[in-house]
Amino acid sequence: MDRESDLRHKCADLFGGRRLVVASNRGPLEYEGEGGQKLTYRIGCGGVVTALSAGARLADVTWIAAAMTEADRHVAASGGPGPEDSRAVGCQVRFVVPDRQAHHLHYNVFSNPILWFLHHSMLDNLRRRDLWDQMEKAWEKGYLPVNRAFADAVLEELRRPGSAGVALLQDYHLYLAGRYVRDRAPGAILQHFIHVPWPEPHAWLQIPWHITEAIFDGLLANDIVRFQTQKSTHNFLLACLDHIRGAFIDFEKGVVTYEGRRIRVRSGAISVDPQYLQQKATSPEARAYLEKLEPLAGERTIVRVDRVDPSKNVLGGFRAFELLLRRHPELRGRVKFLAFLVPSRTGIPEYRRYKDRVFRLVDHINARYGDESWRPIEVFYENNFQQALAGMTLYDVLLVNSLADGMNLVAKEGLVVNRRDGVLVLSTEAGAFQELGEGAVAVNPRDVDGTAEALWQALIMPASERRRRVALMRAAIAERPLSTWMSEQLEELHEVAVGAVAASAVADAGRSSWREAVA
Amino acid sequence: MDRESDLRHKCADLFGGRRLVVASNRGPLEYEGEGGQKLTYRIGCGGVVTALSAGARLADVTWIAAAMTEADRHVAASGGPGPEDSRAVGCQVRFVVPDRQAHHLHYNVFSNPILWFLHHSMLDNLRRRDLWDQMEKAWEKGYLPVNRAFADAVLEELRRPGSAGVALLQDYHLYLAGRYVRDRAPGAILQHFIHVPWPEPHAWLQIPWHITEAIFDGLLANDIVRFQTQKSTHNFLLACLDHIRGAFIDFEKGVVTYEGRRIRVRSGAISVDPQYLQQKATSPEARAYLEKLEPLAGERTIVRVDRVDPSKNVLGGFRAFELLLRRHPELRGRVKFLAFLVPSRTGIPEYRRYKDRVFRLVDHINARYGDESWRPIEVFYENNFQQALAGMTLYDVLLVNSLADGMNLVAKEGLVVNRRDGVLVLSTEAGAFQELGEGAVAVNPRDVDGTAEALWQALIMPASERRRRVALMRAAIAERPLSTWMSEQLEELHEVAVGAVAASAVADAGRSSWREAVA
Repeated sequence: MDRESDLRHKCADLFGGRRLVVASNRGPLEYEGEGGQKLTYRIGCGGVVTALSAGARLADVTWIAAAMTEADRHVAASGGPGPEDSRAVGCQVRFVVPDRQAHHLHYNVFSNPILWFLHHSMLDNLRRRDLWDQMEKAWEKGYLPVNRAFADAVLEELRRPGSAGVALLQDYHLYLAGRYVRDRAPGAILQHFIHVPWPEPHAWLQIPWHITEAIFDGLLANDIVRFQTQKSTHNFLLACLDHIRGAFIDFEKGVVTYEGRRIRVRSGAISVDPQYLQQKATSPEARAYLEKLEPLAGERTIVRVDRVDPSKNVLGGFRAFELLLRRHPELRGRVKFLAFLVPSRTGIPEYRRYKDRVFRLVDHINARYGDESWRPIEVFYENNFQQALAGMTLYDVLLVNSLADGMNLVAKEGLVVNRRDGVLVLSTEAGAFQELGEGAVAVNPRDVDGTAEALWQALIMPASERRRRVALMRAAIAERPLSTWMSEQLEELHEVAVGAVAASAVADAGRSSWREAVA
Repeated sequence: MDRESDLRHKCADLFGGRRLVVASNRGPLEYEGEGGQKLTYRIGCGGVVTALSAGARLADVTWIAAAMTEADRHVAASGGPGPEDSRAVGCQVRFVVPDRQAHHLHYNVFSNPILWFLHHSMLDNLRRRDLWDQMEKAWEKGYLPVNRAFADAVLEELRRPGSAGVALLQDYHLYLAGRYVRDRAPGAILQHFIHVPWPEPHAWLQIPWHITEAIFDGLLANDIVRFQTQKSTHNFLLACLDHIRGAFIDFEKGVVTYEGRRIRVRSGAISVDPQYLQQKATSPEARAYLEKLEPLAGERTIVRVDRVDPSKNVLGGFRAFELLLRRHPELRGRVKFLAFLVPSRTGIPEYRRYKDRVFRLVDHINARYGDESWRPIEVFYENNFQQALAGMTLYDVLLVNSLADGMNLVAKEGLVVNRRDGVLVLSTEAGAFQELGEGAVAVNPRDVDGTAEALWQALIMPASERRRRVALMRAAIAERPLSTWMSEQLEELHEVAVGAVAASAVADAGRSSWREAVA
């Protein structure tokens, strides 16, 4: 793997073998099992964690994450995770252990659903009166203390001998951590990467102003704020203009000047590791799943792979499928919809209700249109990446119709592993549309009618056109591998660090490096 | 009136005394009375109509408007409005008489509520399933034919002898008229002014794509597209980038290149005529109203003046007032809320329901907090501009908390006529915030809690601070009178016309002016 060793060298060059700090709510290790039982761990499998893990393996990284399970707490209490477990994921893992109630308010009330819905422009979902009433409490007693706990851990790691003085904060759970760190370590080099889409400025009116201001202030405490897409970058800059007093915005350069500091606002799309995926998709395990799935496929097969999240618009997709069956009776008995649905955030009432609605609609469609020999929709409701990957090898149409999506790695994964020149029906609101839009069949995710029409166009598309489009999209993926996403971050962090050395040399001739400023 | 005669000269200079065409759904004349009765007319009184009327008086204008009442249809059928009536409003009025059902679909189903809610980012209101189902029909059988009828009338007027070949289209009812005119008169000079706020790009996903595309294509058939605020301009350009294939956007210059033409995208805030308002507010009629109102005022008086429209957020204002009374019992018996509410769009179910909710909340607050000697809220539910103006002379606090608002002339009117150095509590989402934001107490209109706090701050503000703020805001209004709004439009239209002459001279040496290109 050339790119990987390139990247390893680059990281060593740039940071002289010193440790980087990564912080995210969910980490690469999660323990299971209770009380006296032996604890077992499993490696995280979300898109963010997968991508970051690949990055973490290439550098000397301490990864700070919240203890998510009781077993995690147990491991943390006994000083773990131990070196063996850390070795397995390629980096040193450190748990933050927030108060249980605080973490509940942080995770189940504030971050998801409030921040999640806001980021995905699902503002209707924020209108519930009880959410507004809960907001202040969840902020004060959940979001703030958990962010403080993270900041404490980050600071400790930044100050350890051998630290590069650089922290990479992740996503919407940790917006205030940067501020807390900055206030106590003015010389730290901080980046915040936001994996979710940044909504249009208007969305921020849906929460109280002081919270909006604190979030922007927290992000602007970093040296670099980084997004998946240019649209997100632009929306962030616009919102700074609207909401943040004392911020001066340079749209051309992508720089916000705030409190006398220059904050770089950047975008760079995350991606997949094609080699890794190919290998997974051809493993004996995947082949076994494929054998099970092939008999369930139709003459034509539509596939979707999503967490059961209202933002993924699973309901809209099935409604469009129903419309398709109604309008084109000739498809009945011939087309199948395989839906790989991953259970998600079942601790949140909205998510439970959404899941129920999805299953009711599936039952309705299967009852109304199916018969003994043909069931229109097959649902696989489990967290089983291998099985979903096997499913993606055989789609004729992959449906990705999210209402909004930071990137959507499923679209990219599908293109890598599919064997049938399948057509990608892709929401214009997914970050991936930026790279794949030219080859995909575009859909407005709110338009059920238009989605049905897009599925139809995809199903009847001539083979030559399918090939042309797949080639276009695969080229786009090849052009920007996961390693690019990582190396551009490392390079810019290094640039900032070098700038900080120069600046501190001017300000204080006694300092020899930016790292000393952290201490 | 110096400015007015300046403007009259400018217009004569620029267009050589030739006629301009103005087109808007509602015109300056509206007839009442039935069948055999004598028809009477009243002069329109909406903000848009008032501003345009002032402009129309300064030039030779033919104003095309829809027949809104049965009496209007009657007048149109007998060849009217006659010259006398036209003289009364200072311009020649021509009615377009669309098919009744078509106009109903255009006005009551498509333009309001669908386009209205969309423009005001009230996307929840578009989620109703029946609206989506009605959309295609209302578009096809309402919006398109009414726009075609307007275009026919505009074309006829443009081609009359003495026409300047220039048409000024108004607002969201006529988005396709420009396209229909352009296709048949490539040389016409067309401007479309949009009085409502242009929403963020995301909003356009709420309607089917082909409709969004047709709307943008219709607007880009003009030479100039003009908005109230820079934010609207920016949102329009962003959406062109997102939605319109083949459009090249120059953000710096505010120019869209489309179909080989350069379309200027501009902003310029509409305003009020202070002299006219002063005169109205000191008329004997206004004084009579004032005598009636003064006994109803409190030690401190909060005033609002709004059409009963969900976008005006009347409910949110009363909820904030209730919270204020709950938190500050010392205000009870001392503060009054005078609400001048104008009946609006009562033909649309959403509006009727909204009105009912408003009145229920008023009754609840009056019953819960009031007593025999003190009724917290007084509502005046009628279209009575004089009375509202009288009310505005005596506010201590003027509440304008719209969810979104193209401009909001009430904020400006209030500042002109108020006698108490009253405080303006102003939504950040009103176009007027751009000019008045520095002197107003800003509110996030979705934040009821924050609005209550803003009312409190306004009520306790020291006199010196009130004076300082009023002075700031009055200066802002004086800096940009209504005449500026009009003259900048005339000047730019002239610039385009001169450019067109030059271009057509190159293209065809036989043409002596842009006006011939219309024929």
